[in-house]
Amino acid sequence: MPNTATPRIHLGPNPDAALIRGIERGGGVLAPLDDAEAVVWAQGPDTFPAELPDSVRWVQLPSAGVEPWISAGIVDTDRAWTSAAGAYAGNVAEHGVLLLLAGVRALTEQVRATSWRKAEFDPQVGTLRGARVAIVGCGGIGRAMIPLLAAFGADVLAVTRSGTPVPGASETLPADRTSEIWSRADHFVIAAPATSATAHLVDEAALAQMKSTAWIVNVARGSLIDTEGLVRALRAGSIGGAALDVTDPEPLPDGHPLWTLPNAIITPHVANPATGLTGLLADHVATNVERFAAGAPLLAPIDPARGY
Amino acid sequence: MPNTATPRIHLGPNPDAALIRGIERGGGVLAPLDDAEAVVWAQGPDTFPAELPDSVRWVQLPSAGVEPWISAGIVDTDRAWTSAAGAYAGNVAEHGVLLLLAGVRALTEQVRATSWRKAEFDPQVGTLRGARVAIVGCGGIGRAMIPLLAAFGADVLAVTRSGTPVPGASETLPADRTSEIWSRADHFVIAAPATSATAHLVDEAALAQMKSTAWIVNVARGSLIDTEGLVRALRAGSIGGAALDVTDPEPLPDGHPLWTLPNAIITPHVANPATGLTGLLADHVATNVERFAAGAPLLAPIDPARGY
Repeated sequence: MPNTATPRIHLGPNPDAALIRGIERGGGVLAPLDDAEAVVWAQGPDTFPAELPDSVRWVQLPSAGVEPWISAGIVDTDRAWTSAAGAYAGNVAEHGVLLLLAGVRALTEQVRATSWRKAEFDPQVGTLRGARVAIVGCGGIGRAMIPLLAAFGADVLAVTRSGTPVPGASETLPADRTSEIWSRADHFVIAAPATSATAHLVDEAALAQMKSTAWIVNVARGSLIDTEGLVRALRAGSIGGAALDVTDPEPLPDGHPLWTLPNAIITPHVANPATGLTGLLADHVATNVERFAAGAPLLAPIDPARGY
Repeated sequence: MPNTATPRIHLGPNPDAALIRGIERGGGVLAPLDDAEAVVWAQGPDTFPAELPDSVRWVQLPSAGVEPWISAGIVDTDRAWTSAAGAYAGNVAEHGVLLLLAGVRALTEQVRATSWRKAEFDPQVGTLRGARVAIVGCGGIGRAMIPLLAAFGADVLAVTRSGTPVPGASETLPADRTSEIWSRADHFVIAAPATSATAHLVDEAALAQMKSTAWIVNVARGSLIDTEGLVRALRAGSIGGAALDVTDPEPLPDGHPLWTLPNAIITPHVANPATGLTGLLADHVATNVERFAAGAPLLAPIDPARGY
């Protein structure tokens, strides 16, 4: 990518003070779309321009998951596209650790209780100390969780596409060996991208191998878990529980059993809440504008063939 | 304390495999009470021997808080007494961080919800990143919380009796300056011993100075918080919320407003659950038996005058 001293960036569809500061901090200047070398887009795919001028050599999208952009045919091969993967990682990691702790320490039913059920709850309270936590899809979010889990004395078994060792994990497996983890880990954090290869990654065969105390946390996408199989496992008590920030279907419809099962926790896709979201995206944009200007590799490049 | 190569330890009132191994690991041998140099007691004060032989120069009690032992007049000045303070610190610290995260990320109402209330919950989800957390009574539990909070990007303001700087805290205040913290910190963890000096440490004056987003976590004793004042503050929404593992009165009676307030979390004194408790105590006992044998200072000495 050629060096551009002061890249001309189109910010759309609306101006946003934090993002303008991010673009400027990265050394860019705002420009109309017709005259832009790059686009920073702060909304969903519905309002995205039907055509981009040839001058646009890079597009920054606002979300970490980009499957709607790919399935809408927006992400082309004429230019570079980047997602916001990693920008929100720390916040999602914090939520994921909360969900895991809440599960392991049996917080759900304690929060719902209206009387002092100590004798009942006391033996249900576990600990992360000494637990082995598998992080499936150990990218930005998973990597941000490792120091948090380590602080609690848990050990991390990472799964990545390539299997290249993840710093801080005691072991890293390649994705084609995922089936080995279900019986080996105490708990599971699902943090992989949603692709055709990861759909129903947690299926009935996986659930059947898990320990009866295992908690599953999903902070990625609902499609990675076979919901019906999960509900059966939760009802049977064959696993400890599931704490899900993302669901399939999503939004989870009223009356769905996951709302009321004692060993399920649902948070409505708030791991990366809008509060402060633009600020986190602005930091990511600043770094990428600076890299674009320097002709350096951009953060979070999208590969439409890979699906993320 | 004179050196005793193989201290004779009485374990009462009942034998326990983990504690026997702990005593032996520390270099001690089991002995009847009449012939014991030390006592390891694994139950409450009710069953404690009315009189101890003069040969007993040290008593290890099984709990971290020892006020019932002191008020029952059991803790004398004829010998050394130690509590289990610190033995369970890591487990209580884990629970305390869970309670704080659950509060800050608005988990209570999400767990109780039975429909997808994303628009309502999304703006309520906060973060520990960048938050200043005051730990009031920064002993074993508080110190064990510091690396956990640091991993989440929170900053710790410690309060200790003496004000001697606590490693890892960005600032340490002596107890006589506690009143300064209420307006300065974002959140509060109460981890001080229950004494006459700490009763109602969190009173209406303290509550009135807190930020409207402040969460209070209590993992110490219920008496440290003015419950009626707290309920008023929670109802008024003048603070963010309270997550209490200990209450006043305890057990919290059925129908108490704390059971159902949307910004309150109650766990029934399970921060240090019986599961695995004996194992943690056994490690503490092993260390103290070894120290007793070597004539070295014991862990967690009790000062009856101080009250802990």
